Amino acid sequence: MNELVAKGKKRLDWARDHMPVIENVKQEVSENGYLDGKNVSMALHVEAKTGILALSLREVGANVKMASCNPLSTDDSVAEALREEYGMDVHAKRGQTDEEYYENLTNTLKHAPNVVIDDGGDLISLIHIEREDLIDGIAGGAEETTTGVVRLRAMEKEGTLRFPVMSVNDALMKHLFDNRYGTGQSTMDGIMSATNLQISGKNFLVVGYGWCGRGIAMRAKGMGASVMVSEVDPVKAVEARMDGFEVLPTKKGIEKADFVVTVTGCKDAVGEEAIRKSKDGCVLANSGHFDNEISKEKLNQFSKSKRKVREDIMEYTMEDGRTLYLLSEGRLVNLAAGQGHPAEIMDMSFALQMMSAEYVLKNEGLEPKVHSIPREIDEKVASLKLESEDIEVDKLTEEQKRYIENWKEGT
Amino acid sequence: MNELVAKGKKRLDWARDHMPVIENVKQEVSENGYLDGKNVSMALHVEAKTGILALSLREVGANVKMASCNPLSTDDSVAEALREEYGMDVHAKRGQTDEEYYENLTNTLKHAPNVVIDDGGDLISLIHIEREDLIDGIAGGAEETTTGVVRLRAMEKEGTLRFPVMSVNDALMKHLFDNRYGTGQSTMDGIMSATNLQISGKNFLVVGYGWCGRGIAMRAKGMGASVMVSEVDPVKAVEARMDGFEVLPTKKGIEKADFVVTVTGCKDAVGEEAIRKSKDGCVLANSGHFDNEISKEKLNQFSKSKRKVREDIMEYTMEDGRTLYLLSEGRLVNLAAGQGHPAEIMDMSFALQMMSAEYVLKNEGLEPKVHSIPREIDEKVASLKLESEDIEVDKLTEEQKRYIENWKEGT
Amino acid sequence: MNELVAKGKKRLDWARDHMPVIENVKQEVSENGYLDGKNVSMALHVEAKTGILALSLREVGANVKMASCNPLSTDDSVAEALREEYGMDVHAKRGQTDEEYYENLTNTLKHAPNVVIDDGGDLISLIHIEREDLIDGIAGGAEETTTGVVRLRAMEKEGTLRFPVMSVNDALMKHLFDNRYGTGQSTMDGIMSATNLQISGKNFLVVGYGWCGRGIAMRAKGMGASVMVSEVDPVKAVEARMDGFEVLPTKKGIEKADFVVTVTGCKDAVGEEAIRKSKDGCVLANSGHFDNEISKEKLNQFSKSKRKVREDIMEYTMEDGRTLYLLSEGRLVNLAAGQGHPAEIMDMSFALQMMSAEYVLKNEGLEPKVHSIPREIDEKVASLKLESEDIEVDKLTEEQKRYIENWKEGT
Amino acid sequence: MNELVAKGKKRLDWARDHMPVIENVKQEVSENGYLDGKNVSMALHVEAKTGILALSLREVGANVKMASCNPLSTDDSVAEALREEYGMDVHAKRGQTDEEYYENLTNTLKHAPNVVIDDGGDLISLIHIEREDLIDGIAGGAEETTTGVVRLRAMEKEGTLRFPVMSVNDALMKHLFDNRYGTGQSTMDGIMSATNLQISGKNFLVVGYGWCGRGIAMRAKGMGASVMVSEVDPVKAVEARMDGFEVLPTKKGIEKADFVVTVTGCKDAVGEEAIRKSKDGCVLANSGHFDNEISKEKLNQFSKSKRKVREDIMEYTMEDGRTLYLLSEGRLVNLAAGQGHPAEIMDMSFALQMMSAEYVLKNEGLEPKVHSIPREIDEKVASLKLESEDIEVDKLTEEQKRYIENWKEGT
Repeated sequence: MNELVAKGKKRLDWARDHMPVIENVKQEVSENGYLDGKNVSMALHVEAKTGILALSLREVGANVKMASCNPLSTDDSVAEALREEYGMDVHAKRGQTDEEYYENLTNTLKHAPNVVIDDGGDLISLIHIEREDLIDGIAGGAEETTTGVVRLRAMEKEGTLRFPVMSVNDALMKHLFDNRYGTGQSTMDGIMSATNLQISGKNFLVVGYGWCGRGIAMRAKGMGASVMVSEVDPVKAVEARMDGFEVLPTKKGIEKADFVVTVTGCKDAVGEEAIRKSKDGCVLANSGHFDNEISKEKLNQFSKSKRKVREDIMEYTMEDGRTLYLLSEGRLVNLAAGQGHPAEIMDMSFALQMMSAEYVLKNEGLEPKVHSIPREIDEKVASLKLESEDIEVDKLTEEQKRYIENWKEGT
Repeated sequence: MNELVAKGKKRLDWARDHMPVIENVKQEVSENGYLDGKNVSMALHVEAKTGILALSLREVGANVKMASCNPLSTDDSVAEALREEYGMDVHAKRGQTDEEYYENLTNTLKHAPNVVIDDGGDLISLIHIEREDLIDGIAGGAEETTTGVVRLRAMEKEGTLRFPVMSVNDALMKHLFDNRYGTGQSTMDGIMSATNLQISGKNFLVVGYGWCGRGIAMRAKGMGASVMVSEVDPVKAVEARMDGFEVLPTKKGIEKADFVVTVTGCKDAVGEEAIRKSKDGCVLANSGHFDNEISKEKLNQFSKSKRKVREDIMEYTMEDGRTLYLLSEGRLVNLAAGQGHPAEIMDMSFALQMMSAEYVLKNEGLEPKVHSIPREIDEKVASLKLESEDIEVDKLTEEQKRYIENWKEGT
Repeated sequence: MNELVAKGKKRLDWARDHMPVIENVKQEVSENGYLDGKNVSMALHVEAKTGILALSLREVGANVKMASCNPLSTDDSVAEALREEYGMDVHAKRGQTDEEYYENLTNTLKHAPNVVIDDGGDLISLIHIEREDLIDGIAGGAEETTTGVVRLRAMEKEGTLRFPVMSVNDALMKHLFDNRYGTGQSTMDGIMSATNLQISGKNFLVVGYGWCGRGIAMRAKGMGASVMVSEVDPVKAVEARMDGFEVLPTKKGIEKADFVVTVTGCKDAVGEEAIRKSKDGCVLANSGHFDNEISKEKLNQFSKSKRKVREDIMEYTMEDGRTLYLLSEGRLVNLAAGQGHPAEIMDMSFALQMMSAEYVLKNEGLEPKVHSIPREIDEKVASLKLESEDIEVDKLTEEQKRYIENWKEGT
Repeated sequence: MNELVAKGKKRLDWARDHMPVIENVKQEVSENGYLDGKNVSMALHVEAKTGILALSLREVGANVKMASCNPLSTDDSVAEALREEYGMDVHAKRGQTDEEYYENLTNTLKHAPNVVIDDGGDLISLIHIEREDLIDGIAGGAEETTTGVVRLRAMEKEGTLRFPVMSVNDALMKHLFDNRYGTGQSTMDGIMSATNLQISGKNFLVVGYGWCGRGIAMRAKGMGASVMVSEVDPVKAVEARMDGFEVLPTKKGIEKADFVVTVTGCKDAVGEEAIRKSKDGCVLANSGHFDNEISKEKLNQFSKSKRKVREDIMEYTMEDGRTLYLLSEGRLVNLAAGQGHPAEIMDMSFALQMMSAEYVLKNEGLEPKVHSIPREIDEKVASLKLESEDIEVDKLTEEQKRYIENWKEGT
């Protein structure tokens, strides 16, 4: 076994050891048999945890082809270990070109999938644009992330979505945990690894206060930063304020920010005006799905030079002499400069993925729209998680259940 | 002006000075005219903030009759000031008997209401049981709290709800703020006022991790306690654990708890087993709507004596020698031992109440079920709140709006 | 027993039940006998916890006379209960004039004390200025608070201090806990009780980042505020910044502060410039020992009117139309609007007081200067505290002790 | 320039850009001239920030020889860049044997130092044991860390310390920041990098609640863990409890700990009993100076096999089947698995180092004992730090200064 493969294998083993929920779900899915012999095409960040999902799907009988959902997020050691040690069909390489990226997505479709697992919506989008021939064979899909769900809902609204897609992202056990605690921790980890700079005593601007933004703000505060939040949604803005953060427009926050993290799902969250006004020495990072939240175009336009000053840091010297630091080319900093979400978090998300894949097969003929994960699946995953940690919950007595059903008993 | 009235008037003035959102909403509601000349029956905790809601409703033209929604939560100074200084028809007294309580509720119905504003569901329940004659005249109602909404949904499910009720509690601007930050702060305030005990370095058990429970746990932690959480819902249990709290069954948590707060919406949350096992010296408090979350029946049954040791503390000496302290007879500790939610929080909740009252009149003929507050009302209240604090938010550009609508642009 | 006495007695009982450390210390001090038959003059805030100290001193054989150390901090129910129920010689009344205040201090000296227990330094100062005749009979004193110690050190430096004084404030078990966790909690409690305003989502300025300031800042953050800190000491300023707070001059912070708390031990911490610039609607509170930290002179000078809007709130309408709210006339807000520090905190401080009183008697002839509390006393109090809560600590093995003593064993 | 050198040079540049305080101090030290032409021997973790200290000392005229103070903490890229690009005399290599380690320490003494800068006390100890001939030429030393200071005090007590040593560790600007915020952040960073495991929702045991332990506990809590603390000092134990942590003996805490970090300065903090009782799957890390805080001897003794499962993780399979994970062979996890303290923190510590080196030269003939850093040096560093971040502090007026000096003005 070469060194890269050995490293990748260890990472897979380590992940598997910390993913008891999917292990448990696997046994049940295997018994049910819905995935047996089915073809699954996956586009996820190729690293240890998704590797375990792919292997688990194969272990319950599915044929799996896998590509990366982001040109810069592949862990090559894991990709190689999956290919060499497990004979998995993996089409991914860190730092691939856009052309290679789409070629790899296309490669996962060769076996004509019955189920499509996507993260960000590129694979499902590709099928609808270029491979409509496959649609009839697809029982359904599952989408992992906010950005992908936003795209799918736009397709649904437009009437162009042609098979059902489970919105894994909207499951409680996904967005409450993966987006909040996973992104929160891994973003801080990525920034600290990339910069080795002090967080406490710094001004930290979080652009976007969705579940991911809440997680990042919470952890930045937990590491001792003074946290500011920018939002477009007034309800979330009030929430951020009540959570103890200063709330202000991006262009104002950036004037005093030592760190900025975008996590909006929208392009140009840090655009021209923000770039013009940002504090000297500011570190810019993105944890949103695409690398367009911080405008690299504007960074290039208003800088007179740039150079790589650390492995994951590009230093831009602006025309007016200010220095800005962009982490990981504006791609997901937690994956590109860190190791992605912890295994225990992905364990829950990928248990949902596996149960979603089973659900679309079991309930074939669902409407071609974005479907919520049924409450039972959420509760199942939650219960397995608690069980894996030996945590007990209270049980309602019969009398309490009756009480809750009964509207007449008052004061 | 006698002393009590003077005190109540000052409290009303102070509240009004800190409720800019409802002030702003009032102007618009007044211009629209839907509430003009309408009869409103209200059952809310009678204190300064609800007093401002009542006065505001009158200021836009409604005829208001008001009672308390809880026998122990009335601020007599405010009740008296509303009657004496403002001529408001208020039927409430702190420490009323159950009989007086229902008599007072009934009194608010004398003018045959067009709109009913309720908190906990007793008034709406009373109408359905005893005053069906009024139902035809009622355009709709609005319910303030989780407990009430649970009861109304039980009625809806049973098919017995006969007029539409706006679920103010389910509005984002209500439960995200009132339940979480309001209950969180006022519960801690009530406990500290009642006991003058140290919170930091103590074990603090929160029973129930809904929005209120989250708020209490957050604030208890913020005051330095070691916080434990009990839940029946596995999803919430995982969330509490990820928030850094120990999660365990009530009967286990109470063995080491110095403070217990119930906020479940269910009776006997602290029942026989918990009472038998609770730590010596444990302080028991409730912030749920009804006083049945901590079983007083069981406290009495297993104690050999009880005596009042401070204004809001009943000391129970158990048969086995342990001492337990029950705050405010198990009624809402934040209202009974404290002053209730801060004005700025109720400002948002009551702006929703006023807009809900207008909504049922404006959209007469809504189905007889529990209705969600429309997103526009939430956003309106949020925007007014931000405006009142001079907080600016970002605005999406046209290009960004297009981007969000467009599913084709990916990696 | 009249109502006031009954209330005070209950408060004393409640405090005693939550002060196990002093109970334990009392037994040992009693056995040693040093305090037996000695005269003790005390000037402390007269409330339940100091009442227990006074009673405990008497229980070990001392003759105790007690006055208040602040005109506005006496709990009259406790003072009355101490007099009526326990026959204690207490000279204190809430709201006394300055003349009465000093008369009461003088009254405690009638029996010619052997030991003086002071809080703020007024009593010791009085003895040195007006009652030098008593000095020969005084074995020593003990001072409770930062302000008093600062004054005593000034006396020592000047060469005018004529008997030894134990600096209880400098004991670890005092300032780490009483100043930080005690003041932190009781200040928030006082502000919430006085105002019933929301803390979360507000700007909160803490002026002074000593142990008290650290505690207040920590708790204000814990209640959800955005906290700012002003300091004169650069080391503390860096610490406040690293703790995640914005650090800026008082006059800048107050421009955006919703709440200001002074805790500097210095006068005019909020002086003319700050008052001129403070935000409209700002709430001003003091937790420092004297009522001169917020300049009432300047508030009066720059306001056109003032009126009491709640029991503990004076509203100043400034010449330029802004409104400022001063809590409790600028006196210690935690005592004047709250109930003072929790009993468990004072338990440790007063155990130190009792052991300090014993120490000056046991070691008669100490130099007339400010003395630190010996480390053994701190450890004794800490160990008793842990014992009272059933907390175990690790013990060094003999081998580990040797290792720590041995400098030769390195890498 | 080869790749390793290029990487090291970039790390040095990056550090220098974030160390404005030492840059500023350097100018003044250079003007004073005390270090000009003097020989300095240094034993510090060789990485980017210490590299900047070494270069700065050379820039003010000193001749510098440098070795590592720990066999596993050297950043080879920086060591190589210092040698190749800057011609610095650096004797250090990651993963050196104990023999090489001491040989390298000895190499730094070749030029007969005038000043010795040490971290952990190995170099000063070596001089006293093996190179007493050098002592007469040494004006003094400076020690960086708690462990070293403990050893030096043991030498002082024993009467064997033969030149003055400045206790940089005891400076406020050192231990309040470096130990607390530096160790806090870098330990979490090291653990997350090494394991990619979730911190939130886990039990995290911190053994030792000195400044480092406080920092780690604070950050582990900030990342969402349930934190427990073990201590031998009762005062610190009470403090940990009041800070909201569960306090219990190591052997009890480890039964439920998912992560354990030792930071005690003592050997066998996790010894036989703890290892026997630790939870299955527990991750063991050390942030104390030496690698003897977690007993590797006992881990080997009670395990049946071990294997490397990730780059910085050794998996021990215990005889009873439990799995334990030891990070970085029990050496400082923040340096061995992370990148050490952030530059901004070391900036303050190393400004103190430089001023201490100057101090022993300027005040030649200091007593041969452990000396505290003068308050002026602390304030100087603090003021420069504030200046570098554009933070203003308040200034006392003349009147306020007089007030503080004057003990007569009371109530």
